[in-house]
Amino acid sequence: MAPPNLKLSSGHHMPQVGFGLWKVANETCADTVYNAIKVGYRLFDGACDYGNEKEAGEGVARAIKDGLVKREDLFLVSKLWNSFHEGDKVEPICKKQLEDWGIDYFDLYIVHFPVALKYVDPETRYPPGWTYSESDGDVQLSSASIQETWHAMEELVHKGYAKSIGVSNFQGSLILDLLRYAKIRPATLQIEHHPYLVQPTLLQLAKSEGIAVTAYSSFGPQSFIELEWQNAKDTPVLFKHPIVTAIAEKHKKTPAQVLLRWSTQRGLAVIPKSNNPERLQQNLEVTDFDLDKDELDAISGLDRQLRFNNPTDYLGTLHIFA
Amino acid sequence: MAPPNLKLSSGHHMPQVGFGLWKVANETCADTVYNAIKVGYRLFDGACDYGNEKEAGEGVARAIKDGLVKREDLFLVSKLWNSFHEGDKVEPICKKQLEDWGIDYFDLYIVHFPVALKYVDPETRYPPGWTYSESDGDVQLSSASIQETWHAMEELVHKGYAKSIGVSNFQGSLILDLLRYAKIRPATLQIEHHPYLVQPTLLQLAKSEGIAVTAYSSFGPQSFIELEWQNAKDTPVLFKHPIVTAIAEKHKKTPAQVLLRWSTQRGLAVIPKSNNPERLQQNLEVTDFDLDKDELDAISGLDRQLRFNNPTDYLGTLHIFA
Repeated sequence: MAPPNLKLSSGHHMPQVGFGLWKVANETCADTVYNAIKVGYRLFDGACDYGNEKEAGEGVARAIKDGLVKREDLFLVSKLWNSFHEGDKVEPICKKQLEDWGIDYFDLYIVHFPVALKYVDPETRYPPGWTYSESDGDVQLSSASIQETWHAMEELVHKGYAKSIGVSNFQGSLILDLLRYAKIRPATLQIEHHPYLVQPTLLQLAKSEGIAVTAYSSFGPQSFIELEWQNAKDTPVLFKHPIVTAIAEKHKKTPAQVLLRWSTQRGLAVIPKSNNPERLQQNLEVTDFDLDKDELDAISGLDRQLRFNNPTDYLGTLHIFA
Repeated sequence: MAPPNLKLSSGHHMPQVGFGLWKVANETCADTVYNAIKVGYRLFDGACDYGNEKEAGEGVARAIKDGLVKREDLFLVSKLWNSFHEGDKVEPICKKQLEDWGIDYFDLYIVHFPVALKYVDPETRYPPGWTYSESDGDVQLSSASIQETWHAMEELVHKGYAKSIGVSNFQGSLILDLLRYAKIRPATLQIEHHPYLVQPTLLQLAKSEGIAVTAYSSFGPQSFIELEWQNAKDTPVLFKHPIVTAIAEKHKKTPAQVLLRWSTQRGLAVIPKSNNPERLQQNLEVTDFDLDKDELDAISGLDRQLRFNNPTDYLGTLHIFA
């Protein structure tokens, strides 16, 4: 059974459950995407920064060639990296990314972070990452405002390179400012969201402004343990949290499914990743059972305002969550 | 002894301790300002929204007339209210505020909130407050971006109406965005800051960007109890907190002095208010003793990310701190 769609303010429909391509290895990415399509995934959440758009595109192309899906059945998402915020850099990089994927439009193209870094020529280094050169700590800024970037994003819609546009990792006051000058409103907001970082007021803002929210890192510290981040290793694993496991047992679901359902039942989209075929299937089946209100509240009650993906922690600068 | 000055990025100097005019009653405001000048206060932190700028100006005028100070000895601060964010509304309202004060420039003029509300003609209602009409809940937005407002703020400097300009209640990502287009950088950031709301990353951002920080509501819930706010009434009073009182006893200071010193010693400016002559004097004497590092840390350790001045709570909208 295909997961339901969310209707976006752009008029397009976005699958509520998709597959996140962050940290999917280049070697396995094409097969992973192909298999995920076979299992029923239709949304793939990629990004310049993930460094695997060519391989993801190969998986898509093979699935289309084999008749598993048509392009219009898929919802392909990518993101504008920080190094390309200047008005005249947005379209060229979006077109390069489309070329890497082997497609001619993104269903959704997102400003990855409210951070503008000095331009790095893709011929020099791609994806550029956070630093201007390869040296640690060489973070150099661009003076491109979010307004400049957003107007260039809007052009992508006018030119047909993106059906919908959105933002990620934006705080409330910055979203409110964006809404003042946006001619095309952000259709989605992608944020770190799990029981340790619930951000109820930000969700309330998005809801009242008609912006769909996509949760990333739905399993909390899980996504960051493989990066060897100490704060993730020091945090109790959500899959083994007694509140989560008790609810999972009661519903005969996995803890991962409970965590994903906690988000989807509250109206959010989710983009889990798995390399394991069984879990791939399970993660897709997170809209066909319901948690009780008490169970939803118990999971929300785990909130400790604990953010893992924070440049302040891993770069010591770019305090976008201050 | 006069409190030390902080050097601002504008080149001007701002007294580190001042007098906050929020909630100073119209009836007593002129005398309060006059007496505070007599005691040694040189900075007065006012705002359109406080509704007492004429009276504050009367106090200033009398003090100058009596030879207590000259205009150039004072550092007079006011703020742009949300209803005047549109580019063409900034200068007229600033000039009206100057006229109310009876002065021809502000030492510092601040964007009060990153909120743009629909214009209310001062002839109709002044100060306008949060709602468009007098009805509860009638919050109507303007589409003036922070960039539009800031460029109008910069004009005030060019025209001599403000020596320095700053912002208040801004989050990190919005400050970073402002810095991208600012021709004149914000000299100061005024934020709610007390041991229950420490915001270390925001302080780190301000420091690294050379923006002076002014703490408001240094006594935490104290400022809000008189507004009958339940969350303030439900929070332990900082003046009686055993950590604060123990440090106060050791240094033979009042708890208020310890709370203010905790901020000034960490480089922040403070703007306490008091109607009591003795406390008025005490609040000024908060730069001439030092707390130990352990004491500073113990006070910072009370942080519970507890914000009182939040439109989300008192308006149910304008989620600027999400």
